[in-house]
Amino acid sequence: MFGEIDHIGVAVEDLDDAVALYRDRLGMREQHRERVEEFGVEAVLLEIGDAHVELLTPIQPDSGVAKFLDKNGPGMHHVAYRTDDIDATLERLRGAALRLIDEQPRTGIRDSRVAFLHPKSTGGVLTEIVQPAPGH
Amino acid sequence: MFGEIDHIGVAVEDLDDAVALYRDRLGMREQHRERVEEFGVEAVLLEIGDAHVELLTPIQPDSGVAKFLDKNGPGMHHVAYRTDDIDATLERLRGAALRLIDEQPRTGIRDSRVAFLHPKSTGGVLTEIVQPAPGH
Repeated sequence: MFGEIDHIGVAVEDLDDAVALYRDRLGMREQHRERVEEFGVEAVLLEIGDAHVELLTPIQPDSGVAKFLDKNGPGMHHVAYRTDDIDATLERLRGAALRLIDEQPRTGIRDSRVAFLHPKSTGGVLTEIVQPAPGH
Repeated sequence: MFGEIDHIGVAVEDLDDAVALYRDRLGMREQHRERVEEFGVEAVLLEIGDAHVELLTPIQPDSGVAKFLDKNGPGMHHVAYRTDDIDATLERLRGAALRLIDEQPRTGIRDSRVAFLHPKSTGGVLTEIVQPAPGH
C-alpha cells in the first residue's frame, strides 16, 4: 500500500534555529522552504537519502502544529508514507476501518496530495499519506 | 553523515495489537521480532521500502520505553538514521557539540550498533544513529 517513508514531520518553535541544527550539525542538505497556507505552517524540507525531515512552524495560531507545540513543545509531529495513488490508498484505508482526518486529499508542500489518518486509530501516531507531485 | 532514515520507533502498549494494525490494516510486512534486553524492550520490525517501523513495548518497568508510555502514552518514540560508520559519526556529532546519551555504541536489534542523541540537543526529537550489522 505504501512505498516508503516520505518524511518525518518535526514541530519547531524557531525555523531558522532548527534548520541550522539539521543542516550544520546533523549534516542534512536544505532542499526547499515554503509557506503551506492550507496547514497554517511554514515548512523546510531537508534531504535524508530519498526521504526528508520536514521542519514545521506555525504561521497561524489555530493550526494543528501551533496546538501541538502548546501541548507538547517541540518534537516529532507525524510520519508520512509515500504512495503513487492516494485515492486508491484512502479507499483501502477506509476499507480497513481506519479513521481518516481527511476524507479527500488536500494540497501539501510542493503541490503534493496528502491526507492524515487520525492518531486514535493508529496507536497514537499522527500518520500522513503523501502522493508527491510529478517530478518530486 | 547519515545515509537515510533507518526506522521510526513507536512505543506501544500491546505488541500483538500493534503488529496487527501495521500488518493487516496498513499493509506492512512483519520482518523480525526480538527481545532486546539491552533496552528492556520487545520489538517488531515491519518493512516500509528500505526502512522500518519498529514497534516497541517494555519488558522491564524501568526501561526508557516504559517511562515514555507512562508519561505520554503510545506514539512516536524516536527516529533513527543509518550510518555505515557509527564511530566516525559519533565523533562528528561530538565535534558539533551535540549531547550524546550513549558515548559509545550499544548493541541494538539484529546486532546493530546504535547510539542515541539527547532530545535536549535535537529540538525535542529523540534521535538514534544505527549502523546495521553486515547483511541487514
